Amino acid sequence: MQNAYRPIRVALLGAGSVGSQVARLLLEHKSELASRVGAELELVGIAVRDLKSKRNANLPSDLLTTDAEKLILSADIVIELIGGIDPARDWVKLALNSGADVITANKALIAAHGPELFELAQKLGAQLYFEAAVAGAIPIIRPLRESLAGDRVNKVMGIVNGTTNFILDQMETTGANFNDALKEAQNLGYAEADPTADVEAFDAASKAAILSSLAFHSEVPVEKVYREGITKISAAQISDAKAAGYTVKLLAICERVVEGGKEGIVARVHPTLIPVTHPLAAVHGAFNAVFVEAESAGQLMFYGAGAGGPQTASAVLGDLVSAAKRHLAGGPGLADSTHANLPLLPIDAAETRYQISLLVKDLPGVLAKIANVFAEHGVSVETVQQSVAAHHDKQVAMLSVMTHSAKEASLAAVVNSLKQNDSVEEVASVIRVEGI
Amino acid sequence: MQNAYRPIRVALLGAGSVGSQVARLLLEHKSELASRVGAELELVGIAVRDLKSKRNANLPSDLLTTDAEKLILSADIVIELIGGIDPARDWVKLALNSGADVITANKALIAAHGPELFELAQKLGAQLYFEAAVAGAIPIIRPLRESLAGDRVNKVMGIVNGTTNFILDQMETTGANFNDALKEAQNLGYAEADPTADVEAFDAASKAAILSSLAFHSEVPVEKVYREGITKISAAQISDAKAAGYTVKLLAICERVVEGGKEGIVARVHPTLIPVTHPLAAVHGAFNAVFVEAESAGQLMFYGAGAGGPQTASAVLGDLVSAAKRHLAGGPGLADSTHANLPLLPIDAAETRYQISLLVKDLPGVLAKIANVFAEHGVSVETVQQSVAAHHDKQVAMLSVMTHSAKEASLAAVVNSLKQNDSVEEVASVIRVEGI
Repeated sequence: MQNAYRPIRVALLGAGSVGSQVARLLLEHKSELASRVGAELELVGIAVRDLKSKRNANLPSDLLTTDAEKLILSADIVIELIGGIDPARDWVKLALNSGADVITANKALIAAHGPELFELAQKLGAQLYFEAAVAGAIPIIRPLRESLAGDRVNKVMGIVNGTTNFILDQMETTGANFNDALKEAQNLGYAEADPTADVEAFDAASKAAILSSLAFHSEVPVEKVYREGITKISAAQISDAKAAGYTVKLLAICERVVEGGKEGIVARVHPTLIPVTHPLAAVHGAFNAVFVEAESAGQLMFYGAGAGGPQTASAVLGDLVSAAKRHLAGGPGLADSTHANLPLLPIDAAETRYQISLLVKDLPGVLAKIANVFAEHGVSVETVQQSVAAHHDKQVAMLSVMTHSAKEASLAAVVNSLKQNDSVEEVASVIRVEGI
Repeated sequence: MQNAYRPIRVALLGAGSVGSQVARLLLEHKSELASRVGAELELVGIAVRDLKSKRNANLPSDLLTTDAEKLILSADIVIELIGGIDPARDWVKLALNSGADVITANKALIAAHGPELFELAQKLGAQLYFEAAVAGAIPIIRPLRESLAGDRVNKVMGIVNGTTNFILDQMETTGANFNDALKEAQNLGYAEADPTADVEAFDAASKAAILSSLAFHSEVPVEKVYREGITKISAAQISDAKAAGYTVKLLAICERVVEGGKEGIVARVHPTLIPVTHPLAAVHGAFNAVFVEAESAGQLMFYGAGAGGPQTASAVLGDLVSAAKRHLAGGPGLADSTHANLPLLPIDAAETRYQISLLVKDLPGVLAKIANVFAEHGVSVETVQQSVAAHHDKQVAMLSVMTHSAKEASLAAVVNSLKQNDSVEEVASVIRVEGI
């Protein structure tokens, strides 16, 4: 092993659960990493907010600093693990402007300011790596960017939020309702005290934006991703789905669509029914998985831990080895690519299936009236299941309708019409269906 | 998009099911690929054995040539898709010697002559890409080499042969025996007329050699991979396994072991029981999947089509885009890495569990005698199930023993002792168990 090259100077911003693991691995695996890279990786400092914080106790105190900016300007490669937008955005820009390559696990930053940061990096010949920002340790960025670079991705469906997958899995396994499953997730440390970012799917929407921009080489602003959380999913919905051979998953779905003869992208996050035989249905607990359909490669799936300190640290270190090798040998790195520049379309342009449960008057001829509503909007019905139910002391019929694939706009119109129809007492639930 | 760079000259060797797909995609997606690479990819020729062969009918006849060597010497990047060792090996060496980068889908070549070819490439500053050689379209080489480059892989378990997975899946689903399931696979085009390479696990052993060399950065000669095929798997074994919550898969297993205080590798391919809840158990039909356990990343799985023309072509084109970008910008590419240089140990060094079915005399005290055999070799028994059976008109007892994890050498010694034990009528089956 020749180690002629001087050590590569690595600065770490943040010493939380991921940062402290990265520091540990950099120090413990120093010689193994050096032999992989061809030069030593020298951890020159760790920027923290408070030198005396308890969690910094196990880190070498001579590496800790509160002067992040000075640290950034002394490094070849900067690893940003503080999260959030401020000051992460300024520090990443400072690093890129200084000519350093940057590695980040910050999905919020990449989803909100990716285009600006990638443009800056490209202008300066620096690189911005973010494998850890989506699906933790699961290698998905590199496969999408490189392995599938000669193929055409048509659809990506991901379980990209471990908290919500854990909650839905609990509801299915134990019959618990949403609130109880959420409490269990909080007790086990899978959900935050304020779970909004997870259960309202803000986190998954950030990842959907990043995945679609990678898969389709186009800019996808996170605020334009259609978003629906899991707070309204009932125990009954889940057990009905199970009985019918389906499971409910919060999916981030990005797909290529054709609208008015032109290609575009739809990015959406919502609870989704998938058949239990689908590979994504076997993803339990807090695990993540990303399912990809490409023109030539067909169906692929990437599965693993979506979060966790050591897992995310693994992804960060993979990027670090790539960045360090590029530092030594030059080369293209993982430049952002928006050359295809497909327009982001509203969810109306998506084609999906719906499963609609509704309570209707238990009278002859009602089924025909309901069927008519679907027909009027050009939506074809695959199956209808009818059962008797009680609703406000009236005997009513419960209809469970599975549609064929149709434009979301038509399906939405059907649901609107049903709500206004005299024969309908209540539209009990509407859920999209994928993977059939 | 600047296209200032001259077109990159791509030569294709072979026009079989993969080659013809690669040619089609190169021609059909020309402008899309150019915008991804930053320069045009010009297919300068396709070397074939017979210009007038029927299957070449759809390829542009002006690109076809029988002079492979002349074609190779005219190219920047050579794609070798003829398979086999001769003349593939000579042609790859000719290409590398001429300074061209080489992309190959030839697992036999990489498994048998990888070290020689990588050394040649490194000496000449050329690159050898082979994503398509393992698990078809599934991106596994890049994740192992790059995404996990900062982590330590401890174990890789792969379903890397679609033919045998299809056969075992058929046996489980339909209750068919091996011969009937093989016939079905042959009828459907999943198995060759001479199925030896698949069912005797030679193909899987090649892939195990490649996977272990990548995962452990060490040389792994294919002839030293332990190999057991699926021809002796019975319908009864599969239905018994199913009843006990297991499924039988042919797994290529590569793992880091410690033997006498020193680290080494064991690479083995054999039929294996895995619990139905394991992610690999959900891999059906001719699909492939690779399950990875790494120190920090934890459990990962990569799933997709393991073979097929378009699928393998997707992997080849991913490599082509990488190679072309490197051609433009320079950089490290995917150099082979054997820096860790761990020794390859015989299967005796592996730790596994066994499930052993044996017919014993139906007499008091026999169970104790059998238990003693396990104890003598230091193998701990987890469960024993006993049932009554008939054997050569004698009433005997059938014992199904699941062991705890132990060194393969001790387990093999147990089986030998059992075969010589007076109380044992027959050792009906021995199968390794993983994934618990």
